[in-house]
Amino acid sequence: MGTCSADLAALLGPNATAIAAADYICNKFTDASFAVDNTYLLFSAYLNFFMQLGFAMLCAGSVRSKNAISVMLTNVLDAAIAGLFYYLFGFAFAFGSPSNGGFIGRHNFGLESIPSSSFDYSNFLYHWAFAVSAAGIASGSMAERTQFVAYLIYSSFLTGFVYPVVSHWFWATDGWATAFRVDNGFLFGSGVIDFAGSGVVHMVGGVAGLWGALIEGPRIGRFDSSGRSVALRDHNATLVVLGTFILWFGWYGFNPGSFNKISGFYTSGNHYGQWSAVGRTAVTTTLAGCTSALTTLFGKWILTSHWDVTDFCSGLLGGFAAITAGCSVVEPWAAIICGFVAALVLISCNKLAEKVKYDDPLGAAQLHGGCGAWGVIFTALFASEKYVREVYPSRPVRYGLFMGGGGRLLAAHIIQILVIVGWVSATMGTLFYFLHKFGHLRVSADDEMADMDLTRQGRLAYVDHDEDESQKQGFK
Amino acid sequence: MGTCSADLAALLGPNATAIAAADYICNKFTDASFAVDNTYLLFSAYLNFFMQLGFAMLCAGSVRSKNAISVMLTNVLDAAIAGLFYYLFGFAFAFGSPSNGGFIGRHNFGLESIPSSSFDYSNFLYHWAFAVSAAGIASGSMAERTQFVAYLIYSSFLTGFVYPVVSHWFWATDGWATAFRVDNGFLFGSGVIDFAGSGVVHMVGGVAGLWGALIEGPRIGRFDSSGRSVALRDHNATLVVLGTFILWFGWYGFNPGSFNKISGFYTSGNHYGQWSAVGRTAVTTTLAGCTSALTTLFGKWILTSHWDVTDFCSGLLGGFAAITAGCSVVEPWAAIICGFVAALVLISCNKLAEKVKYDDPLGAAQLHGGCGAWGVIFTALFASEKYVREVYPSRPVRYGLFMGGGGRLLAAHIIQILVIVGWVSATMGTLFYFLHKFGHLRVSADDEMADMDLTRQGRLAYVDHDEDESQKQGFK
Amino acid sequence: MGTCSADLAALLGPNATAIAAADYICNKFTDASFAVDNTYLLFSAYLNFFMQLGFAMLCAGSVRSKNAISVMLTNVLDAAIAGLFYYLFGFAFAFGSPSNGGFIGRHNFGLESIPSSSFDYSNFLYHWAFAVSAAGIASGSMAERTQFVAYLIYSSFLTGFVYPVVSHWFWATDGWATAFRVDNGFLFGSGVIDFAGSGVVHMVGGVAGLWGALIEGPRIGRFDSSGRSVALRDHNATLVVLGTFILWFGWYGFNPGSFNKISGFYTSGNHYGQWSAVGRTAVTTTLAGCTSALTTLFGKWILTSHWDVTDFCSGLLGGFAAITAGCSVVEPWAAIICGFVAALVLISCNKLAEKVKYDDPLGAAQLHGGCGAWGVIFTALFASEKYVREVYPSRPVRYGLFMGGGGRLLAAHIIQILVIVGWVSATMGTLFYFLHKFGHLRVSADDEMADMDLTRQGRLAYVDHDEDESQKQGFK
Repeated sequence: MGTCSADLAALLGPNATAIAAADYICNKFTDASFAVDNTYLLFSAYLNFFMQLGFAMLCAGSVRSKNAISVMLTNVLDAAIAGLFYYLFGFAFAFGSPSNGGFIGRHNFGLESIPSSSFDYSNFLYHWAFAVSAAGIASGSMAERTQFVAYLIYSSFLTGFVYPVVSHWFWATDGWATAFRVDNGFLFGSGVIDFAGSGVVHMVGGVAGLWGALIEGPRIGRFDSSGRSVALRDHNATLVVLGTFILWFGWYGFNPGSFNKISGFYTSGNHYGQWSAVGRTAVTTTLAGCTSALTTLFGKWILTSHWDVTDFCSGLLGGFAAITAGCSVVEPWAAIICGFVAALVLISCNKLAEKVKYDDPLGAAQLHGGCGAWGVIFTALFASEKYVREVYPSRPVRYGLFMGGGGRLLAAHIIQILVIVGWVSATMGTLFYFLHKFGHLRVSADDEMADMDLTRQGRLAYVDHDEDESQKQGFK
Repeated sequence: MGTCSADLAALLGPNATAIAAADYICNKFTDASFAVDNTYLLFSAYLNFFMQLGFAMLCAGSVRSKNAISVMLTNVLDAAIAGLFYYLFGFAFAFGSPSNGGFIGRHNFGLESIPSSSFDYSNFLYHWAFAVSAAGIASGSMAERTQFVAYLIYSSFLTGFVYPVVSHWFWATDGWATAFRVDNGFLFGSGVIDFAGSGVVHMVGGVAGLWGALIEGPRIGRFDSSGRSVALRDHNATLVVLGTFILWFGWYGFNPGSFNKISGFYTSGNHYGQWSAVGRTAVTTTLAGCTSALTTLFGKWILTSHWDVTDFCSGLLGGFAAITAGCSVVEPWAAIICGFVAALVLISCNKLAEKVKYDDPLGAAQLHGGCGAWGVIFTALFASEKYVREVYPSRPVRYGLFMGGGGRLLAAHIIQILVIVGWVSATMGTLFYFLHKFGHLRVSADDEMADMDLTRQGRLAYVDHDEDESQKQGFK
Repeated sequence: MGTCSADLAALLGPNATAIAAADYICNKFTDASFAVDNTYLLFSAYLNFFMQLGFAMLCAGSVRSKNAISVMLTNVLDAAIAGLFYYLFGFAFAFGSPSNGGFIGRHNFGLESIPSSSFDYSNFLYHWAFAVSAAGIASGSMAERTQFVAYLIYSSFLTGFVYPVVSHWFWATDGWATAFRVDNGFLFGSGVIDFAGSGVVHMVGGVAGLWGALIEGPRIGRFDSSGRSVALRDHNATLVVLGTFILWFGWYGFNPGSFNKISGFYTSGNHYGQWSAVGRTAVTTTLAGCTSALTTLFGKWILTSHWDVTDFCSGLLGGFAAITAGCSVVEPWAAIICGFVAALVLISCNKLAEKVKYDDPLGAAQLHGGCGAWGVIFTALFASEKYVREVYPSRPVRYGLFMGGGGRLLAAHIIQILVIVGWVSATMGTLFYFLHKFGHLRVSADDEMADMDLTRQGRLAYVDHDEDESQKQGFK
């Protein structure tokens, strides 16, 4: 604003009214850009939030019919718990600058002093939806065997503390590992480029889920007595497709929305600006997802000689999780490479999980953790110099190894992976361990074998026949 | 526009070209703000409309399987009927200024003279979606036992006349009870602040449904011979979650969208403007819903010792219905109070309904009527002076009793509740009474006991097994 | 932009700083309009893409339960295949100007040189979604009996070549039949007004599906031994409603989004501009759909004396398909006529299809082909002079026959229909013929009679009961 007024006043003339005229005009400009940027961010936030319905439908369709209600309950709970906890302190931990040494924010609790010159309510809403996503991912890994009270506890802890801290490190302007810091000595003079959170959101959710699922162990019957894998089949492919497409739709809020703003020329007076980068981000996201979906579909066809729509769906989501880190700084053709490799990573992780008898009903740790980690690496290999300069103008320009940018960014990104795995393991792993130790993590074998929806939630997801009274008595 | 040109011309210089330059520049500004405001309003309208799918899925999931088709048919019909009737005269009754003494509009029938300086097509579309919502609420109360012809009649009457008149009173600039009138003698010198319609939409729909459901009486089997309540169980919790989340998504069109515009500074040259108020409205909406959902979930757990995802869902919607009136003028912390009390209101209304043997398959009267009424009161208690000044700049500033604003707003809001209950009872109650009297309201007991989807709609919602020919013959 | 700077510089004064000031100010204006126009187009593209979920749910609900997975797989595949093919060459064929004599584009392969002054990434994304729609329509016609490999081949061919060429003719600025050409000798001195593609998208998809379904023939059991029609009933009306409403929601991206931009006054300094035309387009779309839905519902009630929600749904979609061509250039009242006739066209086409034993599980050829063709004719009858001047400012003004515009537009539109039918028949018809000839089109009778989801996809859409191990073994 100040710049606009000063620049324009210099052009309009030296007198006082010229300054006032410049102020007046610039004020109107700013009005327009605030209005359009907030419109952009708010609708992105709505889409981003809508992903939680995608998770809920995907989870409901991926578990056995008897557990559909319980898994949906965890998904809706994530959104509501995060609403309160992220409002009370999550947002403050994440973005309350100046922070405690780049580790954790310490202002704006309960949205105090918001809106500020840095953040408006729309930013809070947008980041709340990210926190919900992280929790939603973890819920998938632990479906069909986790106590309700465990969900309440870890979801609060994850959305209120663990995730916000990570997002502070990599996304807040004064986080220790942020791409925006010009003075970053920790990371080989390079910040981390994790644009929309392959690491910050997907790996956090995936690693959290991994620990939860590891500690509570496989579902009963998932591996037979001789240790052979037995698929516990999802009950409804229509819900899987529904959830996946809602996630696809919402990802256009997740990835392109992470620009927060859409106005601003890159090359003055021309057609090229932030809106182009936003559009390109939507295109890279689309291409990575499509490539990964097709690769997974054909790959699984080669392996099993069946075409399966749920392979397509998980491949799609794996491609999205991978492109999320670099979506804004890579070329569309690179996104195709990203998606292709993501499919291979996903298939391999799933094979590995089976081999080590890791049971994750949604494959969330493999998909979000594995493909997310690949996305972090991919960005360090393929980030283009031109796009990094435009999207992160104030940072020391480090770009992709394969694009001629040297290995510093890759080194920084490897550290990002280690740090996220370490932090989430130390916090969430510990939490799950103690929940397990004190018997609050896993439901009893009886409950698990019975219809869990019935024992815990007191009802079944579907009532096929209008039941007679005797039945009703028992449930409610 | 005029203001901009005059202000800027004064600054640019006294000559004719300066005036022309100011005109030219201001014209461009206005272009930008029309474009962004209409973008904002149109996408809000789309979200708002999308809520009708939420209602349809919620209703389909909440009724017995055999009635899923009939209840969905009423929901889709509401949207289509309202499309025609609101176009032909609903919008005119609501916003066709100057009106007949503040009671009913009388211009713009069939969108004549639209776009005007007050309204563009986007406004029509936005308010059409509100009319659909009001009708959709009422449909829920009357599900599973109402004749199709009754739906056609009351839906037309509600969307074409009853609802538009109420919205005229409280929302049109010359409605007798509008917050925008500075000369309002009727309401203790205070207009009513019902920003997005806890009263105007939710109570109207809820009270209409209440009368319909009361007059036709409970479904067969809803209360047993000894008068004890028997739950007629919803058949599909997945659809309930799906519908609820679509409603949540759509509510971001309903509440923040009610600003109609997103551009405009509140404090010149700073970052604070209409976009902040819009964002804050989305935040208060979110917090009220989340709090109410969690409170209802835990409250019902205390009462029944079961965790039920549908409790979460109805609590969420109750919180939304309550915050709708005050969403733009209360602090986020107050929204948490709003949601907490909304949950208690909802649980109490449901208890009361059971006690008085009122049968509402969706609990719509309790949820939209009860929580809506609480929302109207809540606004009169917690509206903040600062926000009221910003959101309703031309009104005599009355704000919340608990915020130091005195009791006039509360008095006005109590009158709003009475007026809405009175008007809807007089119109819709009378209509339902005559439909009942002439035998057009309720289906026959035989039809109700049989599969209603089959007898009335000629088909079942689900065909589980590919049927043999003999079956097909009979249906179509 | 150049115009803005020159105009404003002339007003601000003759000196160099005035020119610089004008540049500075105009630059800011352009920034705002690029930001808002891209916001508008991107979110329209997201909605437009979301329609594919609508198609998937509609198809899944409209086929027999056993085929739900296979039909959904084709829908998700369409989106992914189109993502790659439209990126690699579809967009280039459609919009890579200058083209080969107005027949096919030849630049921008792999989005080379995008963003340009004509197109940004958002345009690509928007048109990709159109290509997906065309393929999705055809998938519906061929559901329940087509080999998977046939889908792969025709979907690639349709989205990568056949559809892009048609869209070049009618939509690219140098297409031979575009409404934007002022020198058009081919079409009676009139270009074709097919604003959002009743012909370009719906007829292309419908005619392609028609040939596919014709060549492979009816499903087994669709007509009995005596040739009498036997309805193969859709299995899930809830999914039909879900899909239809998602399509309705998405159509607000499809039709109003086709403006690509939302900024720009029509009458300087007033309230009337492109945003009004955009809003009006949303209104005409809504009214045509609602009218057609109600007409179909009542029409089918007259014919069968049953109220059927799926009649409502197909009527709605028929109305949308019809209004798509003229949505931006007709009055709202004309849209009601459009929808009314669309319902009659739809019912007649369905009757005709039954008579000639044409089997189209989704009725897609009838709905998109038949109503789409009516929409092309309708536009030539009812396009208003005023709106044509505003929406197509650079074309020789030809408008509707019934609006006093003479018959040239109608003649041009009849040629459009013939050309589309001819082109799609020549390309897709030939493709289907050879696929059929070499045995790659239709599944074997055994596979068709069996559970196709099981034989081809190796699984069933629904697993009602948690199966025992023996079952699982066989599937995966």
